[in-house]
Amino acid sequence: MVTIEEQSQTLTRAQIKEVWSELSTEEQINSFKKLSALDAARFFADLEARDQARIILTLPIKERRLWLRALDPDDAADVIQETEEEERQALLSMLDPLTRSEVIALLAYAEDVAGGVMNPRYVHVRPDMTVNEAITYFRKQARTQEETIYYIYVLDHEQRLVGTISMRELLLASPDQRVEEVMRTQPTTILENVDQEEIGKLMQESGLLALPVVDVDGHMKGVVTVNDIVDVVQEEATEDIQKMGGSEVLDAPYLQITVGEMVKKRVGWLTILFLGEMVTATTMQFYEIQIEKAVVLALFLPLIISSGGNAGSQASTLVIRAMALGEVRVRDCFRVIKREFITGLALGGVLAIIGLLRVIFWQMAFKVYGDYFLLLAMTVAASVAGVVLWGALVGSFLPFVLKKVGWDPASASAPFVATIVDITGLILYFTVASFFLHGSLL
Amino acid sequence: MVTIEEQSQTLTRAQIKEVWSELSTEEQINSFKKLSALDAARFFADLEARDQARIILTLPIKERRLWLRALDPDDAADVIQETEEEERQALLSMLDPLTRSEVIALLAYAEDVAGGVMNPRYVHVRPDMTVNEAITYFRKQARTQEETIYYIYVLDHEQRLVGTISMRELLLASPDQRVEEVMRTQPTTILENVDQEEIGKLMQESGLLALPVVDVDGHMKGVVTVNDIVDVVQEEATEDIQKMGGSEVLDAPYLQITVGEMVKKRVGWLTILFLGEMVTATTMQFYEIQIEKAVVLALFLPLIISSGGNAGSQASTLVIRAMALGEVRVRDCFRVIKREFITGLALGGVLAIIGLLRVIFWQMAFKVYGDYFLLLAMTVAASVAGVVLWGALVGSFLPFVLKKVGWDPASASAPFVATIVDITGLILYFTVASFFLHGSLL
Repeated sequence: MVTIEEQSQTLTRAQIKEVWSELSTEEQINSFKKLSALDAARFFADLEARDQARIILTLPIKERRLWLRALDPDDAADVIQETEEEERQALLSMLDPLTRSEVIALLAYAEDVAGGVMNPRYVHVRPDMTVNEAITYFRKQARTQEETIYYIYVLDHEQRLVGTISMRELLLASPDQRVEEVMRTQPTTILENVDQEEIGKLMQESGLLALPVVDVDGHMKGVVTVNDIVDVVQEEATEDIQKMGGSEVLDAPYLQITVGEMVKKRVGWLTILFLGEMVTATTMQFYEIQIEKAVVLALFLPLIISSGGNAGSQASTLVIRAMALGEVRVRDCFRVIKREFITGLALGGVLAIIGLLRVIFWQMAFKVYGDYFLLLAMTVAASVAGVVLWGALVGSFLPFVLKKVGWDPASASAPFVATIVDITGLILYFTVASFFLHGSLL
Repeated sequence: MVTIEEQSQTLTRAQIKEVWSELSTEEQINSFKKLSALDAARFFADLEARDQARIILTLPIKERRLWLRALDPDDAADVIQETEEEERQALLSMLDPLTRSEVIALLAYAEDVAGGVMNPRYVHVRPDMTVNEAITYFRKQARTQEETIYYIYVLDHEQRLVGTISMRELLLASPDQRVEEVMRTQPTTILENVDQEEIGKLMQESGLLALPVVDVDGHMKGVVTVNDIVDVVQEEATEDIQKMGGSEVLDAPYLQITVGEMVKKRVGWLTILFLGEMVTATTMQFYEIQIEKAVVLALFLPLIISSGGNAGSQASTLVIRAMALGEVRVRDCFRVIKREFITGLALGGVLAIIGLLRVIFWQMAFKVYGDYFLLLAMTVAASVAGVVLWGALVGSFLPFVLKKVGWDPASASAPFVATIVDITGLILYFTVASFFLHGSLL
């Protein structure tokens, strides 16, 4: 077996991680143990919290402490969160008292709010220091803080945030000025319980590398950096995509989740959709006599209901994403529906013409639809137009409904919309058919 | 009308942008002109390139120059890219010569590669400078550079990148050391033509705030910052989501695109899917006699084919996202198919049992399916099991096929997969039906 050590001479860190991720757990641990202290430290820092936790738990107690203490408090909290409940106390007790209290504070927050994402360590100075004093003080604090040193936070005696200075501004200011003269007042802040999706938007709007997290009284709690936010943005998109595909959020990489868990994440929605789709069988029962009289109607059934589903899938996907990006808000509902009404009419019109021509050409070529083929063509065309319009309306309206009742709009997945449109679509189809074919085929 | 100016006293910047985005173009320009110079500058810097371009083009020539020159070269390039071809020369000529040449160089790159995203300005020092000299030099350069000053790049005389130092490391080093003694050698770099999706991954793996962009000979070209990458990650996710919903990428916010463009982006895929789905009508033709004999078969058709589509939608969505995140690569194809085979069997099994019970209970309650209801129940159950398994296999395999032929795997949208599964699903259903019902209903 090629060890990571040998490979690290020639491969990039990303490649090493990739090779490593393909090994079995045992091989992973063995390779890790063979690394030199420096290489191991670098490699360890690069890993996801899930993998860090896995490695730490296989090590003897003494080494566990070493690796755990190498982590920043927010990373240590992530690792501890990845372990089983019963391991947590033991791991917490390995931390030094300051870090332990910070980690416990972090663990008290939900994982996906500002307090759960932030780093509780940051560089802070007092407003009445001179710039020169602040630089000295900053150098001292910066030695122990890797991540969050690009802004300096100015706190009053009660730890309330009164201003910020960037490192650059501090270096460009004259040394004798006082911090309060050069700091920016009224900085953008994040409340500790703000959801991470919201933080992503704030961070993007601010264009800053880090934002301070405060409580309702303005006390500084920690710092969220843009690096955290790249992960957050990626994670939120993944969660939305997985919901939009009609399954639950996997919460783990595709190949790492067990097949059992995978089934569990997917069977729920699939069953709900199946039960929903059963209504089609019940509904069709009412049209059994029509189908008996005109079997040809059954031939176009999949075509028609699927067109509605497809139009609905487009509409719901676009609206859900626009909502997630903040481009569309609940109060835009009416505007969206209006747009989808026009769009749905246009799309339905195009497909209706294609459908009409299909029936006519097939009849001319194969003579399969009998004498009333023109009426059939009109039935197909009118149904397609109606069902596509209906699909676009349902697909765009459903995310608003879900949001209104407090669900995630992303649950208005393509399959969910398709199921609703299938049921209503076939009622529409048979109703249109009765209208056009009454007295001829029906 | 409430002006932005009045509101800026009480609202956050995000809220102001939101209010502003709801105004008509004319109102937007008027509000902008009423702002004080400082407020206008801040507000302008916060806008998207698309809006910046719109504002610039409404201003008199003299003011245009002012606002355009306020932008960093990469932002200026973005604004110019948003304007029509015929405006571009005039706008370029307003820039100072240095920025103009930088902007022209940026415009030569595709928008979505490292060269198109990077900022061509960065702080650089020589390896033989002392730390003290470097700090002085850095302060001088930093005055004109907002964005990219958190790392200092060490270049040799031919502008080749030989190392990097973070601002923090520079401040912590002793002033008399030479830069080459304290710099990090072999920094992670990005080649100028690397796709932005790849940059996002590199940036996340490196955990750095900025990465240097170089050409194949190692000459430094510019810097990509993590702030750029948040936008990139968001944009890539949006593009994937829109494709996965079965439409083309909108390339603009949902409410800003005209309805005509919206129809154009959606009608293509919808028509392709419609034409594909027409195969169902042709296929069903072959089973017309079976349906005539046993109309009851038609009743379960939507239920069965939609179950396959739903299972396929889940599988394709999960696989596409895992591919985009780099969790699954082309060579993992066989592993993925194996997992989906087992998952599909399990999911199909669950739904089959529900389907079986549905037919039996309905028969007991309503006596609607006749004497052969047990055979019908078995037909439904076996078809559902088969079609769900098949859906999971098609849904997971299709993204690999698309990737292999050079398409975006995200085009394996839920509707696309559903269409394929519909066609094959109904063949499977009628084949299973012939097997179970031959000699009874058929």
